[in-house]
Amino acid sequence: MNETLVTIVGNVATQPEFRRTPAEVPVARFRLATTARRWDRASGAWSDGHTSFYTVWAWRGLAENVMASVGVGEPLVVQGRLRVREEEREGKKWTTAEIDAVAVGHDLSRGTSAFRRVSQGRPELVVRDSAREYPQPVTVSG
Amino acid sequence: MNETLVTIVGNVATQPEFRRTPAEVPVARFRLATTARRWDRASGAWSDGHTSFYTVWAWRGLAENVMASVGVGEPLVVQGRLRVREEEREGKKWTTAEIDAVAVGHDLSRGTSAFRRVSQGRPELVVRDSAREYPQPVTVSG
Amino acid sequence: MNETLVTIVGNVATQPEFRRTPAEVPVARFRLATTARRWDRASGAWSDGHTSFYTVWAWRGLAENVMASVGVGEPLVVQGRLRVREEEREGKKWTTAEIDAVAVGHDLSRGTSAFRRVSQGRPELVVRDSAREYPQPVTVSG
Amino acid sequence: MNETLVTIVGNVATQPEFRRTPAEVPVARFRLATTARRWDRASGAWSDGHTSFYTVWAWRGLAENVMASVGVGEPLVVQGRLRVREEEREGKKWTTAEIDAVAVGHDLSRGTSAFRRVSQGRPELVVRDSAREYPQPVTVSG
Repeated sequence: MNETLVTIVGNVATQPEFRRTPAEVPVARFRLATTARRWDRASGAWSDGHTSFYTVWAWRGLAENVMASVGVGEPLVVQGRLRVREEEREGKKWTTAEIDAVAVGHDLSRGTSAFRRVSQGRPELVVRDSAREYPQPVTVSG
Repeated sequence: MNETLVTIVGNVATQPEFRRTPAEVPVARFRLATTARRWDRASGAWSDGHTSFYTVWAWRGLAENVMASVGVGEPLVVQGRLRVREEEREGKKWTTAEIDAVAVGHDLSRGTSAFRRVSQGRPELVVRDSAREYPQPVTVSG
Repeated sequence: MNETLVTIVGNVATQPEFRRTPAEVPVARFRLATTARRWDRASGAWSDGHTSFYTVWAWRGLAENVMASVGVGEPLVVQGRLRVREEEREGKKWTTAEIDAVAVGHDLSRGTSAFRRVSQGRPELVVRDSAREYPQPVTVSG
Repeated sequence: MNETLVTIVGNVATQPEFRRTPAEVPVARFRLATTARRWDRASGAWSDGHTSFYTVWAWRGLAENVMASVGVGEPLVVQGRLRVREEEREGKKWTTAEIDAVAVGHDLSRGTSAFRRVSQGRPELVVRDSAREYPQPVTVSG
């Protein structure tokens, strides 16, 4: 295995975008920002620390439900597989921290949510299952 | 530190209960069940494995929003501090795995959710902050 | 998937025990204790919080290396799959928090370690692989 | 809080370097590589996936013990706080995934280790404590 599972609690930084792969697999992508908070003993108060940005990918049912539910600025908890990807674009090296999402939810420490189960004639099995098959070299050109 | 952070993806097994501590701090408590799934190579299919149960505690704003949002059977992603607690009740030893929740959300891999931010005149700082102060010996007698 | 991965930083509480399953698979088992530490603002100092105990299981190569390396009281970092198991023994219900270890190491924040790679003619592939197949109903009677 | 704790199981990719901050705090830094492994159903075998690289920082006692214990190519389990840092160097944007280590250990699934506890007249309290104070803008020019 050696997969790196990580959970990020943060805010949606860009509007989720939707595509389908050539094989018609639904994909959603958005940026997630998380700001560390640290206790400052001198001042006796919490202060904001560094902000990290992640590119979150969701697939199939999760992708569709993210599109139907998530907007910019909303607080999320995201669990997924972490990947640090280095690519070259137009001659420049480019590094991104990416998360292939396993579970995504609105963070109830910031508000309330009304949940509606989706059953799409496709067994839950398939959803989970497909998540495992990633990473496929999917091109989601933006 | 040495705190054990864990993220559980599972289903709500008992209706959340609400109390206030003697100091008027809101507390919510519910059971969460998670079932491992394993790939069976022989049959070429996924099958259900062992089911684990956790007692989840939420505090203050998170407690109130859980009460307003979460029902039995709903799929959640819960991040929090894990604690294995052994107690004696009526002469019997009793072990529970407890999670002091930091973030809770409906799992969008199973459905959609409509989120509404709660601003209660109390700064977000206070909410996060109080979470750190746990574990206080709170009595939530059930 | 829905596996719960957790990382515990703690101390070995019982001498590791070794067995072989009927199929001759090496298994090691020990208890691990972890004590939360919390910052007390009133006193301006850290203090010890609750101590949690886990039963850690290691398999095959990892089991053998744990036996050759780990003693009571030593500080470890353990990553693995978490399971809360309820059983009946002699008419009593019994709950344990168990970790099926993926990686185990001496915690270098407490001391130094001299590492020696083991190559046993069996490819690393096999080790990892077998870890995935758990949980098998292995009886390690103690 | 909102800190992102992550555990990486991987191999040391660069020889650890040691510095002291202006305030004489020991710091160690190295690169860690982790390669995902995936089960290929078609072929019925595991294959290597993407490799991610992280910059790991260790402080004080942990830094000293890392220097005394860790070499290139060795397998480690590292737990720490994850940070994605974007900087500009010579007019170029640069992104790194960094881990501020809380615990580091040789991975016993790959070999054995002989551990020796270090007591440096300084209470363990101080070590843990200082880890919390990061991130300070420490310059460790390489």
